[in-house]
Amino acid sequence: MQEKEIGIGLLGFGTVGAGVAAGLQQNGEQIAERLGARLVLRRIADLDLETDRGVKVAPGVLTRDAQAVIRDPGVDIVVELIGGTGAARELVTQALTLGKPVVTANKALLAKHGGEIFELADRQRVDLYFGASVGGGIPIIRVLRQGLIANQINSIYGILNGTCNYILTRMETEKLPFATALAAAQKEGYAEADPGLDIDGFDTAHKAVILASIAYGFFVPLEAVHVEGIRALSEVDIQYALDLGYRIKLLAVVKRSDAGVEVRVHPAMVPLDHMLASVSGVFNAVMVQGDLAGSTLYYGRGAGRLPTASTVIGDIADIARNLVGGAPRRFRAPARSSRRVRLKEMGQVESRYYLRLSLVDKPGVLAQITSVLGAHEISIASVLQKEVRTGEHVPVVIVTHRAREEQMDAALEKINALPIVGSGSVRLRIED
Amino acid sequence: MQEKEIGIGLLGFGTVGAGVAAGLQQNGEQIAERLGARLVLRRIADLDLETDRGVKVAPGVLTRDAQAVIRDPGVDIVVELIGGTGAARELVTQALTLGKPVVTANKALLAKHGGEIFELADRQRVDLYFGASVGGGIPIIRVLRQGLIANQINSIYGILNGTCNYILTRMETEKLPFATALAAAQKEGYAEADPGLDIDGFDTAHKAVILASIAYGFFVPLEAVHVEGIRALSEVDIQYALDLGYRIKLLAVVKRSDAGVEVRVHPAMVPLDHMLASVSGVFNAVMVQGDLAGSTLYYGRGAGRLPTASTVIGDIADIARNLVGGAPRRFRAPARSSRRVRLKEMGQVESRYYLRLSLVDKPGVLAQITSVLGAHEISIASVLQKEVRTGEHVPVVIVTHRAREEQMDAALEKINALPIVGSGSVRLRIED
Repeated sequence: MQEKEIGIGLLGFGTVGAGVAAGLQQNGEQIAERLGARLVLRRIADLDLETDRGVKVAPGVLTRDAQAVIRDPGVDIVVELIGGTGAARELVTQALTLGKPVVTANKALLAKHGGEIFELADRQRVDLYFGASVGGGIPIIRVLRQGLIANQINSIYGILNGTCNYILTRMETEKLPFATALAAAQKEGYAEADPGLDIDGFDTAHKAVILASIAYGFFVPLEAVHVEGIRALSEVDIQYALDLGYRIKLLAVVKRSDAGVEVRVHPAMVPLDHMLASVSGVFNAVMVQGDLAGSTLYYGRGAGRLPTASTVIGDIADIARNLVGGAPRRFRAPARSSRRVRLKEMGQVESRYYLRLSLVDKPGVLAQITSVLGAHEISIASVLQKEVRTGEHVPVVIVTHRAREEQMDAALEKINALPIVGSGSVRLRIED
Repeated sequence: MQEKEIGIGLLGFGTVGAGVAAGLQQNGEQIAERLGARLVLRRIADLDLETDRGVKVAPGVLTRDAQAVIRDPGVDIVVELIGGTGAARELVTQALTLGKPVVTANKALLAKHGGEIFELADRQRVDLYFGASVGGGIPIIRVLRQGLIANQINSIYGILNGTCNYILTRMETEKLPFATALAAAQKEGYAEADPGLDIDGFDTAHKAVILASIAYGFFVPLEAVHVEGIRALSEVDIQYALDLGYRIKLLAVVKRSDAGVEVRVHPAMVPLDHMLASVSGVFNAVMVQGDLAGSTLYYGRGAGRLPTASTVIGDIADIARNLVGGAPRRFRAPARSSRRVRLKEMGQVESRYYLRLSLVDKPGVLAQITSVLGAHEISIASVLQKEVRTGEHVPVVIVTHRAREEQMDAALEKINALPIVGSGSVRLRIED
């Protein structure tokens, strides 16, 4: 049988780019057999032509000139792996404008400029795939766009940042403070020297915005997403959580209700018997609740050279099928819903809460706290007071029933102003 | 925008058929918006026109005549939900011969006649989707065919039968014997009156054959698959397994090595900290190990009206895209690999073993056992002997290191023939 060849052009030859090149070399025969077309890596653009990436490419493939890749008539599919929102945005726009289908793994680009980029792809009737922007080696984007297409998505809960999950796992199993666990993650190569994007929750927020765009057809402005990272987490709360039957995870929550769609990122307490609580180390997982499928969960490596390459090549293969079949643009832009979707204000979000307060050790202090909570219509589920003294203050843990965020904000402000309350009050959300 | 309509014809209006009709009614608008085409349920064939399925269909849609559905020029996609290998086989063959794309959820049909049916689809250049044949609401077939296309699949471990998993969960948590847990499953509607297909492992074997066909491009003859069900499992072994840090699951194992591909179904001990051990009740899960993606896991409801309908409609939507784009037959038949794939004989399969033997309570008996194992080059990892007397015999649990199945078969034959060994020796495989 004669085999079609589909030419691939890579923009960016870093970790993932080298993984894609390696994956195509390693499994090229098998992919061609499954696909009925051969994927040929024609050009790679990168500013650094020197570094050895551990993968050989034919002479003439590597160039400093991104334009030469995009405009090469032998390049049928452009794969953007540069990252960031500068050159990447420009090059993706150019490729789409030239009518070339694009694969990108760039979560920041889509979270910030997804609206405009998808609109361009729609106008040009060109394919734009972005599987590796969320979940690395887990094909969660494909599942949401295709496998679960028949479902109203009720909620998505994701552990989407391997760095944070690794740090939380180390903090729990070895009872380490945050800074020590972070340093360990950096030593293992799981955290950047400048870890802010990960540990402050922004990487997770980018991914939450992309998941929400597929589920609900609108791009939430990043500024509107409530984002808390794990930097302020104490190993003390991780242990209290365990005592209460929970594990603390950095969660992306995307959820619909009549009042609108919630998109938020913060540490949350997850019941120990929940599948998400079993996700440890650098692994990621996404739990999707659809009205037909019910709860489904997807688990795997959320980052890394080959896992990410696996998903990127999966996207390339899909576009190759479309090109071979002469039917491009199989998917509509996710953000073109005609229904009006509203973002739910964080103040309106409801959950149960875990509070750890530092109280003066005197009779009647707990009554003062409970009366403030009561005044804000927050009812208490349980109180935990261990005999641990920290000077004149004792730690008291309160678990509440469901309450609105704005009620809790107001109550906490009052509580923290009480003279019996020491500094460092902790508030965590419980997702049951 | 003008919307294309794609006509659907259902064969079979049972549980899943009614679910598909309900799903299309419930979420039709949203599906049309995401797809850019409207799925219209034109005809449904079933012998029973009377039973109320809890879903309304327009007059004239329902018929007793399957031919009228297949041949209706308004039916673009035929959905086979009859089950079994009789009428279903004939009707699927007819539809494909007429050039109509087919969606089927029929695992028995594909496991037994997949080779011939996929060949026909290939010859006719017509789409054949079978997402709901494995995993119900979990889009595992789509993930294997598309998301993980770049991977050599090293192994697949699946909990693929909700009935069995429900029974095992009840046996463990309530320390019930098998028969009591089975009766409970029947009472809950999770097990059929004739539960053999589920509890004897054949349903799981059908699914294993289908997964292997995608991963390795060949249809294993069902007769060649080693199948053990859960009927003989004792709650005693479930508790011993827990003591040793394992949970017993009915597993489908599909795995490659230089010696060939293993396809087997049997109860196995899974480490408690493994994600598969967290899958309880009627839920299913599949762990796939790819050479690029690493370990990924997919979890959800493996059966039921709406979860299965979710996957069936996902398949219908994909075919609808192909029809709208004028590019049918995007996927090659899974079983057309040019490489020779060999089934590994069960005797060559390696694993660790759990043995529970009933031994006469006399000095030196354990030495007799260990010397038989040693003679068969099976080395012992640990021995557990609790002070529980059952008449003159005591239960002794032995965990071995890795050994070949044929070695263990031979050793067990010798062991069971020893006068010091009582009846009812138990052998379970440990999957680490």
